[in-house]
Order: sequence, then structure tokens, then C-alpha cells
Amino acid sequence: MKMLINVPERVVTDALRGMALAHPELVVDVENQVVVRRDAPVAGKVSLVSGGGSGHEPMHAGFVGRGMLDGACPGEVFTSPVPDQAVRAASATDSGAGVLFIVKNYTGDVLNFDMARELAEDEGVQAARVLVEDDVAVTDSLYTAGRRGTGGTLFVEKLAGAAAEEGAPLERVEAVARQVAGACRSYGVALSACSTPAKGGPTFDLPPGELELGIGIHGEPGRERRPMMTSGEIAEVTVDALLEDWGGSPPTHPVLALVNGMGGTPLLELYGFNAEVQRVLAARGVAVARTLVGNYVTSLDMAGCSVTLCEADDELVRLWDAPVNTAALRWGC
Amino acid sequence: MKMLINVPERVVTDALRGMALAHPELVVDVENQVVVRRDAPVAGKVSLVSGGGSGHEPMHAGFVGRGMLDGACPGEVFTSPVPDQAVRAASATDSGAGVLFIVKNYTGDVLNFDMARELAEDEGVQAARVLVEDDVAVTDSLYTAGRRGTGGTLFVEKLAGAAAEEGAPLERVEAVARQVAGACRSYGVALSACSTPAKGGPTFDLPPGELELGIGIHGEPGRERRPMMTSGEIAEVTVDALLEDWGGSPPTHPVLALVNGMGGTPLLELYGFNAEVQRVLAARGVAVARTLVGNYVTSLDMAGCSVTLCEADDELVRLWDAPVNTAALRWGC
Repeated sequence: MKMLINVPERVVTDALRGMALAHPELVVDVENQVVVRRDAPVAGKVSLVSGGGSGHEPMHAGFVGRGMLDGACPGEVFTSPVPDQAVRAASATDSGAGVLFIVKNYTGDVLNFDMARELAEDEGVQAARVLVEDDVAVTDSLYTAGRRGTGGTLFVEKLAGAAAEEGAPLERVEAVARQVAGACRSYGVALSACSTPAKGGPTFDLPPGELELGIGIHGEPGRERRPMMTSGEIAEVTVDALLEDWGGSPPTHPVLALVNGMGGTPLLELYGFNAEVQRVLAARGVAVARTLVGNYVTSLDMAGCSVTLCEADDELVRLWDAPVNTAALRWGC
Repeated sequence: MKMLINVPERVVTDALRGMALAHPELVVDVENQVVVRRDAPVAGKVSLVSGGGSGHEPMHAGFVGRGMLDGACPGEVFTSPVPDQAVRAASATDSGAGVLFIVKNYTGDVLNFDMARELAEDEGVQAARVLVEDDVAVTDSLYTAGRRGTGGTLFVEKLAGAAAEEGAPLERVEAVARQVAGACRSYGVALSACSTPAKGGPTFDLPPGELELGIGIHGEPGRERRPMMTSGEIAEVTVDALLEDWGGSPPTHPVLALVNGMGGTPLLELYGFNAEVQRVLAARGVAVARTLVGNYVTSLDMAGCSVTLCEADDELVRLWDAPVNTAALRWGC
């Protein structure tokens, strides 16, 4: 598998160097692999810090900026960041109002962020943590006890980030994050495997003519493999898997919908898939308040897609519409 | 090649349906394949209309909005739009201040937009046209007499769009577009072929272990094939090809740099490639005013990248920084 890289060992640091050069509004500590807002710490503001293995770009570093994250700590590809990275991101961004760590539910991430939280508290930083475990496909997957954290992370970071930007105190920001984490459900489908730089080729075998339903964002096994399906059929399976997890009836409030590409699927196809997802949502009686289509929570070069629905009351819709100014998500600023 | 589609014949209309559902700020005429700003025509404002074959998303429909295009007319995949589409986009967006058609230099596009211009003028629309021919790799390629139009299109649309938004008259908007078109140079590299829905597989054969230098955005042949290179080596060949075309000496003014993905290359790799591009630019004495990294002018699922440099005086930098509010490019709004 050909890649646009120098050597596998330097992929993440090379990317951080390139990110620094493209985004003067960010402070990028390449050596320690920490990205923070240039204006951090923002006086009186709760800081949001997230991170995880690289390979899911633009998440998380692409979500650092006004109205979303204050700091991010990318690990090596598909590898949890070490606690020191998260502590550095917290210390660099804490204004004294406290830090909320947003953690995707993978064993390594949970362990390392828990340790980071303790270390940060030892340094006098008031710290809280919210876990994102939105992937309804499987429980106790590879790397995970419980459900995996995937596309719902974007909603937690955006909505809690908006609350923090408005000056909400830590307990309120944490409450919003928990509400959103509980309101999100995701389901992903792979048309191809992804290739990691270290391996130099596909991380699993997905035969021609088959797709994998319920795929994880590291290529972890999903629910089942089936012969290739149409976009409309994939939308039906995906939406129905999400609604089944809602107890079989549609959400009470309208949803925020993320129709997400895994990285290797053209935007042309993603928009077409969105049409099918919205068709099925309408048929199932789900009202959609806002829709975001694009590559936001990716798996390197994997072809495929995921759908995340976030049930949103008026307040969450308002927080979604609030200004955000990051490399990957930007409006109202 | 597995694709997230229903049937090849409906790929573009499916995508337009999905775009309409995600972007209420756009008016999408799915049947006629025309996308315009919802607030068009904007009183007193020159309208910018562009279009071309689909498969390069987010270009062009993703660039419709305040500060950039007023309308776009996507053709079928890698196929020029018909004149009627361009006329509809012009008529729907003309405020009476005139329309500028921005056309990439491909034989079909040039013919059809020329006809559209005549038809629009017959309808009483004052119309001008600027040609984008920024790809330095080859002259007289497949589908092209002269140079191909590629990444420079983004700069022409953004900078002329900013001038139009500020109320500049047609002749001034056209002059800005011509200046920018003349100030842009691009060069692309493919690590893999792209696959069109109609063909259902790769449109050309690129062996494992080889890349193609100077690739076109439809997979048209470039300059040469070589054994796979590192990101740093690709940056050197690319930047040197661009500077050679500048007469061997660096541009006088700083450049706006677009480090663009062809669609299938992960953002992680693109940021790393940007670090190498900036290293080579600095070594060659080229000052960079602004940098944009991402998938903007794509070739479906092709793995690879292109670099566009736009030499920019203070006024062009100011127009670059001006507010833009489109699906794919958004700041300051």
C-alpha cells in the first residue's frame, strides 16, 4: 500500500509539523504531541481536552479552537496518548475554571486519561471526565470493554464546547457532555479495510464484493459481513440499528445527524448516502434538526461511512448553532 | 471496486438530493443539476457561476455561498455540464450586475460555457468568462488544448468571489479573476488511480510501487511514472516543477498555498506532506502568506495530492481573508 509519508515512525510528528504551519491560530508542541488554542488559557473558561490515537483526522486536533476543544493530545496511529500528553494539554489550557477530559471508550484511552486526571488534580487542576460510548454495533469489542466511542465524540465536543465558551461552570459543562454522550448513537459500515503506516497494508481482510456492518473506527470487527449492498440498503440497515437501540421507537426530540465518511469514500458518494439516510429517517418518523456530511471521524483510508444521531432538545440545537472556529468545523465566527 | 451508491446513473442526482437535505442555505435544482445561493440574486452584486464534471467534490457546489460562487452546475462524473445548466445558474443568480463564468480549461467545458455565455447574453444577461489553466504538468493533455484547470480554480473562485461580495463591478471582478488565474500554478501526483461509477473500477493502471507525477484530476496521464517516493521527495519534485514554471526564480510576492488531497489520501498524510512542501518552499526562498490543507479539488477516490501556489499581493491576501460561507470553505462569517 503506497502512502504519502516519509517513514512510518514519523507520521504523527510530520502531520503535527504540517498542522502548525497551516494553522497559526494553534500552538502545536510537536515533540510532546499536544495541540492547544493559541489564546489558551481563556480567562474564566472551562477547558475541554480530548485525544486518542491518530488516524481519525480531523478528530481531535482539527476540533481545537473557539467553541470546541481547548486542547488535544494525539497518540501514535490507533494508539492511546500517554497520560503526560493529556496532563500537558490540561495544564496549558486550564484558566483555573477546571478541565473536562472527553474520552472515547477504549481500554487504553480510559486508563491513560484516568491517570492524567489524577496527575492533573495533583497539580491543582480541577478535572472531570466524560466517556463517549456511542457505537451501538457491538459491546466488548477489540480494545473495548463496553461500547466503542466513535462519531458521537464530535457532538460531545461541539456542544459541551459551546457551553464552555459561553462561560458555563465545570459542573454544567460536564452535565452537557454527559447529556450529549447519552443522547448519541452511531453505527458504521466498511467497504474496505484501512491500512496503517506501521503495517504498510490493510489491517484486515475484506473480500471483494463484501462489506462489514457495524465496523469499528480501527477496523475492529463489526456485526456481520454481507454481500455488497446499495447505498439505500446500507442506510436502512444503519438507521434501523440506531433506532433499535432507541428502544424501537423514534427519538422524542429531533436529531442532529452526522453522515460521516471513513476517509476513503468520495464526498460525492457521502452526499448521495445522506439522501438515503434522510429518506429512511423520514420513513421511520425521525425529525432531523441539523445535518453534517463529511469526513470528520475517519479510519485512515478506509472506504465506508457511519451515521451518528444525537437527540437534541432546543438547548442542544442552540449549542450546535453556536459559533465554532476550528480547522475542521467552523461557522458563525 | 465497491462504492457507496445506488446505481451509477443516479450518482450525481443522489448527491444533489443529499446536498439539498444537508444545506438549507442552498437551493438545489436536482432535475436540472443546478445549485445556487438561497439569497440569490443578491441586489447589485455580480454573480459568479462555475461548474464542470462531477467527481471533484467539494468543488464546485461546495463553494457556493457568500463570498464565493453564486451558482454551480455539476455535470455527470468527469463530464462537462450542458450549456442549459450554466444558463439556468446564471439566470437564477443575475441581479442585473452581470455574471462571470469561471471555466476550467477542458475542451467540453470551454465549448459548453461559451455556448452558455451566448445564450445568457441572448437573455439579456451581461456575461464574461475567465479560463483557469493552472496545471503546469502538461500541455494538450487528454480532453485539453493547452493547460488543464485544477486547484487554481479554488483561488479564482474565492478571490473573485470576495471582490464581487464587496460590490465590485463586473469588469473589476473579471480583472481579479484573470489576475488570479495568471498567478496560480498547480502540480499533482497520483499514488493510485480513481474509479468512476460508470466503469466500476480504476480508470487507468498504476502498478504497485509506482506513482505518477503530473497527474490530471481525471486521471489523465502526467509527466512520468517513477518508483514510489517519500513525502519529502514528492514535495521537492512538486515545488520544483511549480517554480520552474515561474521562470526558475521564486515569485516576487508571498504565495497562498493549497496542499490538496485527491480524495483517497488520509488527512494525517496531507498534513505531513504540507510540512515537506513548506520545507521545500522555504529552502527555495518562497514566502507563504496563507496555507490551506485538505480535500478540495478531488478525483473521486484517487490517492495522491496536488499543490497549488497563488502569488498574492496585499490586495489578494486581503480578499483571501475576507469572509466566506460555503459548505466546504468557511471563515469570517
